[in-house]
Amino acid sequence: MSQQTSRDRLVSLRRDLHRHPEPAWREFYTTSRIVDELESIGVDELYVGPEVLAQEERMSVPDDDELETWYEQAREAGAREDVLERLDGGNTGAIAVLDRGEGPTVALRVDIDGLLREESTDEDHVPAAEGFRSEHAGAMHACGHDSHITMGIGVLEAIKDSDFEGTFKVLFQPGEEMVAGGKPMAKSGHLDDVDYLLAVHIGLDHPTGEVVAGVDGFLAVDHFLAEFTGQPAHAGGQPNAGENAIQAMATAIQNLYAIPRHEDGPTRINAGQVGGGTATNIIPEQAFIDGEVRGETTELKDYMKERAERVLENAATMHGCSVELSAEGEAPSAESDEGLVEIVHDVSLNTSGVENPIRRDTLGGSEDATYLMQEVQGNGGLAAYVGVGTDHPGGHHTATFDVDEDSLQIGVDLLSTSITEIAQQRP
Amino acid sequence: MSQQTSRDRLVSLRRDLHRHPEPAWREFYTTSRIVDELESIGVDELYVGPEVLAQEERMSVPDDDELETWYEQAREAGAREDVLERLDGGNTGAIAVLDRGEGPTVALRVDIDGLLREESTDEDHVPAAEGFRSEHAGAMHACGHDSHITMGIGVLEAIKDSDFEGTFKVLFQPGEEMVAGGKPMAKSGHLDDVDYLLAVHIGLDHPTGEVVAGVDGFLAVDHFLAEFTGQPAHAGGQPNAGENAIQAMATAIQNLYAIPRHEDGPTRINAGQVGGGTATNIIPEQAFIDGEVRGETTELKDYMKERAERVLENAATMHGCSVELSAEGEAPSAESDEGLVEIVHDVSLNTSGVENPIRRDTLGGSEDATYLMQEVQGNGGLAAYVGVGTDHPGGHHTATFDVDEDSLQIGVDLLSTSITEIAQQRP
Amino acid sequence: MSQQTSRDRLVSLRRDLHRHPEPAWREFYTTSRIVDELESIGVDELYVGPEVLAQEERMSVPDDDELETWYEQAREAGAREDVLERLDGGNTGAIAVLDRGEGPTVALRVDIDGLLREESTDEDHVPAAEGFRSEHAGAMHACGHDSHITMGIGVLEAIKDSDFEGTFKVLFQPGEEMVAGGKPMAKSGHLDDVDYLLAVHIGLDHPTGEVVAGVDGFLAVDHFLAEFTGQPAHAGGQPNAGENAIQAMATAIQNLYAIPRHEDGPTRINAGQVGGGTATNIIPEQAFIDGEVRGETTELKDYMKERAERVLENAATMHGCSVELSAEGEAPSAESDEGLVEIVHDVSLNTSGVENPIRRDTLGGSEDATYLMQEVQGNGGLAAYVGVGTDHPGGHHTATFDVDEDSLQIGVDLLSTSITEIAQQRP
Amino acid sequence: MSQQTSRDRLVSLRRDLHRHPEPAWREFYTTSRIVDELESIGVDELYVGPEVLAQEERMSVPDDDELETWYEQAREAGAREDVLERLDGGNTGAIAVLDRGEGPTVALRVDIDGLLREESTDEDHVPAAEGFRSEHAGAMHACGHDSHITMGIGVLEAIKDSDFEGTFKVLFQPGEEMVAGGKPMAKSGHLDDVDYLLAVHIGLDHPTGEVVAGVDGFLAVDHFLAEFTGQPAHAGGQPNAGENAIQAMATAIQNLYAIPRHEDGPTRINAGQVGGGTATNIIPEQAFIDGEVRGETTELKDYMKERAERVLENAATMHGCSVELSAEGEAPSAESDEGLVEIVHDVSLNTSGVENPIRRDTLGGSEDATYLMQEVQGNGGLAAYVGVGTDHPGGHHTATFDVDEDSLQIGVDLLSTSITEIAQQRP
Repeated sequence: MSQQTSRDRLVSLRRDLHRHPEPAWREFYTTSRIVDELESIGVDELYVGPEVLAQEERMSVPDDDELETWYEQAREAGAREDVLERLDGGNTGAIAVLDRGEGPTVALRVDIDGLLREESTDEDHVPAAEGFRSEHAGAMHACGHDSHITMGIGVLEAIKDSDFEGTFKVLFQPGEEMVAGGKPMAKSGHLDDVDYLLAVHIGLDHPTGEVVAGVDGFLAVDHFLAEFTGQPAHAGGQPNAGENAIQAMATAIQNLYAIPRHEDGPTRINAGQVGGGTATNIIPEQAFIDGEVRGETTELKDYMKERAERVLENAATMHGCSVELSAEGEAPSAESDEGLVEIVHDVSLNTSGVENPIRRDTLGGSEDATYLMQEVQGNGGLAAYVGVGTDHPGGHHTATFDVDEDSLQIGVDLLSTSITEIAQQRP
Repeated sequence: MSQQTSRDRLVSLRRDLHRHPEPAWREFYTTSRIVDELESIGVDELYVGPEVLAQEERMSVPDDDELETWYEQAREAGAREDVLERLDGGNTGAIAVLDRGEGPTVALRVDIDGLLREESTDEDHVPAAEGFRSEHAGAMHACGHDSHITMGIGVLEAIKDSDFEGTFKVLFQPGEEMVAGGKPMAKSGHLDDVDYLLAVHIGLDHPTGEVVAGVDGFLAVDHFLAEFTGQPAHAGGQPNAGENAIQAMATAIQNLYAIPRHEDGPTRINAGQVGGGTATNIIPEQAFIDGEVRGETTELKDYMKERAERVLENAATMHGCSVELSAEGEAPSAESDEGLVEIVHDVSLNTSGVENPIRRDTLGGSEDATYLMQEVQGNGGLAAYVGVGTDHPGGHHTATFDVDEDSLQIGVDLLSTSITEIAQQRP
Repeated sequence: MSQQTSRDRLVSLRRDLHRHPEPAWREFYTTSRIVDELESIGVDELYVGPEVLAQEERMSVPDDDELETWYEQAREAGAREDVLERLDGGNTGAIAVLDRGEGPTVALRVDIDGLLREESTDEDHVPAAEGFRSEHAGAMHACGHDSHITMGIGVLEAIKDSDFEGTFKVLFQPGEEMVAGGKPMAKSGHLDDVDYLLAVHIGLDHPTGEVVAGVDGFLAVDHFLAEFTGQPAHAGGQPNAGENAIQAMATAIQNLYAIPRHEDGPTRINAGQVGGGTATNIIPEQAFIDGEVRGETTELKDYMKERAERVLENAATMHGCSVELSAEGEAPSAESDEGLVEIVHDVSLNTSGVENPIRRDTLGGSEDATYLMQEVQGNGGLAAYVGVGTDHPGGHHTATFDVDEDSLQIGVDLLSTSITEIAQQRP
Repeated sequence: MSQQTSRDRLVSLRRDLHRHPEPAWREFYTTSRIVDELESIGVDELYVGPEVLAQEERMSVPDDDELETWYEQAREAGAREDVLERLDGGNTGAIAVLDRGEGPTVALRVDIDGLLREESTDEDHVPAAEGFRSEHAGAMHACGHDSHITMGIGVLEAIKDSDFEGTFKVLFQPGEEMVAGGKPMAKSGHLDDVDYLLAVHIGLDHPTGEVVAGVDGFLAVDHFLAEFTGQPAHAGGQPNAGENAIQAMATAIQNLYAIPRHEDGPTRINAGQVGGGTATNIIPEQAFIDGEVRGETTELKDYMKERAERVLENAATMHGCSVELSAEGEAPSAESDEGLVEIVHDVSLNTSGVENPIRRDTLGGSEDATYLMQEVQGNGGLAAYVGVGTDHPGGHHTATFDVDEDSLQIGVDLLSTSITEIAQQRP
């Protein structure tokens, strides 16, 4: 296939995905389209939905009404009915396997979900100007996962055409934005035989032409939902008869942010979304905090979590309320292994379009690829997280985020060549 | 008309209204039905919607989408198109006038709105068992205003048949539950010539057979909406770059409840409904508090309001946020005048069905009839707030609230006779 | 004794006491001087120190060093060594008994302690100008208890000279300002046979010539000390290793003031004195709150106390601290009995110097005379709290508080005549 | 002088200083003893008290009463009256200068103050066992500054005996523990001609035999005092009339600890000492927070300071109070220059007693030697902070802190040889 034709196919696929962003556990059209592509390329094994997820590890699964809305939308967008059937209960994502004889098992992980935010309609925003803006109201591929899927497909195609020896897997992981999908895929069994794992992310404030062989500095993260329950009462007539869930919540918020900093490294806390109460004249019976804690290491994250739980429970008791805590998502910290970083970096020195090859850089955010990396590293394998720069006009997660589509081919070339090298060198 | 027939009509009207509860500024079916009744009885003057409301005093008017939803629902329920046209922009309510020659102007105020809460489907709940449960999902006449409207119609009819001399007005006031409709009607000009005003409420924990000639002890109240605006930032990457609207909100909540008690009498504060933020990993840019302050007197309420504003503004500034405060509803305190209380009490001693006539009692809640009472009293007139007991299985504002329909006729008799007496005695 | 001579003696005694103010459990000079006076007048029984106090009920007793300082100061001021010996361990106060044959037992309670505050040196302040300003640095009779003692002595003398029949007791109670002395005296046994009790207070914003036969509206009160203990750590090096007692304290303060108001009546809360920590660079290990709760009734006070304890305990646990709570003082609410109020009011109508006799008034503060009143009322007796107006330039508890010495004689006349009347009328 | 004799002199001097610990601006005996030593050794120039301090930069100077107490104690301990006179107003510290011909100016900075904490009386604590425990109640050399002074004297003596060419200064700096003395000495003019500066600290968790050529990682720090002033009122009678300084303080504490973490590096906050109020029944008029903010860099510290000020000011205004902020101490961050570190490290490789020479280590605390380092570096000079290990049984700032006196000679040798080398090599 000519270079130009290849670029056109990548761009076309990415734009179709961009038009159909779907958030965690609702990637129905997305998975259907992935399956289409995989069947068209031809793979040796293809796993879908519940086959790629450890059920007991799934977090933050939406309720049936919400799922139904997105099923319907996917159907209307043209998703295949046979695939949708396999995604029952919000089980999304897929794993493709190429068996290419003797050799190590190498895997590439790409994430596939979009975000719940409205995409810009500004005429300077290319997707709006060129007609591939999101067609799903209130949702957007604002973090480039459409490009990740596209690269995953592109790399699979390239490996198929290459002299790669061994087993190659592409892991299309759902629910990264809520750090909810990494753990169930990591624990699905599909990672058990993986010797080498690469994960990839586009952008991250690196322009087109820059690539990073090993991204580090992931903060471990826990998402939690704290639900307070008190006792309602009429605020005018019997204020004393209530047990005020909003007072409990406010006391908790104040003290969550005040958890002491830690000598061992950066920590984070956020009460990102909160609410409660029913009417101005009723002492509030219900309130919630949807929040997160982070740490440079999993230990630091756990320190924050323990302190947060202490705050939440005592804030509730202080106001005669109970609090129920549930885990909504989590990801450990992780490091890129030098063995892989070296190979990817060496490859990047000779990859067309790469003008600024960077060996290592740090992220400062969280990402549940770390679960898959830990799983492989725990089994004695190696893992690395690769960054592929792209000119992006708006920041990640903003309404004007977009990618330079030239970087798609760079990513495909860098990753496919690296994967072939890894299989040969077995670092 | 025979007593039985009259009772049947009252019950039938009340049940129809009960099936169509509508909250503040959305009383479209309700107003249409009132107009129907008034036209059928025949009145000398009839004012509707914008004609009965001082526009600049309207608070908490819903947005157009919300209004449209309720227009549509009213239309489907059979509201008259000609009336709906007159209610444009959520202008609901009506005033009926009977001109009966020389004599004082006496007015009766009834409120007409329902509440946003789901009605019980329990088979012990009479409206559910007898088929007149709310047909509007999520809304309910849980405070008896359906009975108030019915009594207003019944009294008008009775006065028309009586030897009353003077002018009689029935004020069908919207938006009491949000204390949002009292002020605009009070300032509409329709109260300017009123010499005597009665307001009525059913229930209030008094059983059927008890009536209260003068209810007092209304707490003055202000509903406020405080909207905080900060600066979003990524909670993992740049926590310092945010200005956290939820921290501002939590600081405010803690300090609102801690406003000092006042030597002069009871005060109240409630942050009844709050919320904010968009995602666990974003430093929250927006938050709000929907709250209220109360005081035994308007001065005490104003003390609370001033302190609350000081808290809200400084909580915002402390966290680099701004806060916008808007008045959502308000009502002063008020007292029932002895001149009227005496007449109503005397009448109650001889009203059929009244077993326990009470001269005065206190409420301990708030009610924006006080605006109309103050308006009349300010012009040199007299006002009283009359309680008509009813056996109510659930408390006011609960899902199982209901009235004993026998009390409707008691209310009509008590009020119409009192009004005739007032016009004669001119206290 | 001539009226003038009597006035001179009262003034002279009051000024000597004013020069020697002593706070709770440190009234050593004061008790010595009282004993002097009583012995000079001649009484039938005289009880001192531990003889007038139920030991197990004593609260807020200072430590030995503090007591020793005040013993020494009293000694230097001329206190009698034989009396001081009887006051061991900070047991102050006295009870004098006159046995006058058959008749009821009537008691008068006066409190004797001063306050820890510096007296004004302003030349407009009469004690400063006329040379009887406090000689005890940092202490002052800023609430008129010097006048109370003086009236107690004056009334005893007057009763001795009168035709009173029965038993008369004067209760010189220590530690009222800390509401710490009322309960131990009430439980000492000396109240068991009391049929009628009067307590007296000067001033209370009533000018000279006004008297109040029955003061009511005492708020029940509890003083508490909450001591938080956490874990220190270096604030720069190991902030996470600390358990921050000041954070616990601050969380508690915020939530104490935010305890909901109560439908049944006024409540109060104050974190009046707080502190904690050792150095800016150490995570604080210790902190304390010296506070109080009040209520219009003892039930309301108990409501506040329970909520306060819940706040304090959970604030401690939230921050990994423990908290120790101790009772520092308490007083119930109480009412003046109509039987006594009527007699005192009747007497006041004919008392020389009384220009404005008031039957009843309310206080709005707290006072542990209520313990003695409750004790008597519990035994079937009657009690009343009498106010004797006086022009006082500064407010109670301020540096410029002073009394109009003309009111001393008014108080003596009103009380002694009332007591004689009470014994005769036996209401 | 023989090695043994030298050791004995160092030990003897250190023990005398240990017996007389004096906190910031109260180092009267200490300065007198330093002057004694310097005069006995013989120096070319000697500056004392106000001569070594920029007056306008002095922070946290105690009031006259406090200074007088420590003057008196110094006098009783045998301080020279002529020296005390030169230390008027709490101006302590000294600078000694040796003029040794042509060459660079090299300076050694040692700090001289003790801490306000009681020293252990445990028999395992060597100063207690061997009779040189602190003789000043409540004060202790718990951070080894007694050893620093001793090393300063020892180095001066050694340089005098050496072939050093140039100018050598020893800076005896007061008030390090409160980070209050560094800035005034840095700005005194005595640093203007300094080409090379060494500062030294003993211990820091390094055992005897370890030395660190370049200590880094000082957190920049600001100490602040926030004094809140409100309005008192009777907590029972008029809670609404007060403006509660303790509520303001508590609101501030909660929000100070909740200042967001910063992406650029570690920050710290501590409300180390707080207090307020006068009595349980008075709404508190006064409160204070004695606190600190820190940052890995001066910029991070300034971020914390700005946020802290915003919190403090709005917490005050929220509660109708004012707040006065004063700087109590401060120190920037600083780095040891490689040129000096290399020389000191090379010397340490051949210093008797050094078993474990370390090139660089980080501290994680704060220290106002950084002011002097910055002053020299700002003038184009070089500076380094040297650590001399010592076995210390208790941690720094604990009651059982002590040093291994063998390390005194190691420090003197390392520093004096390094200084000679520096003057020769002029890096």
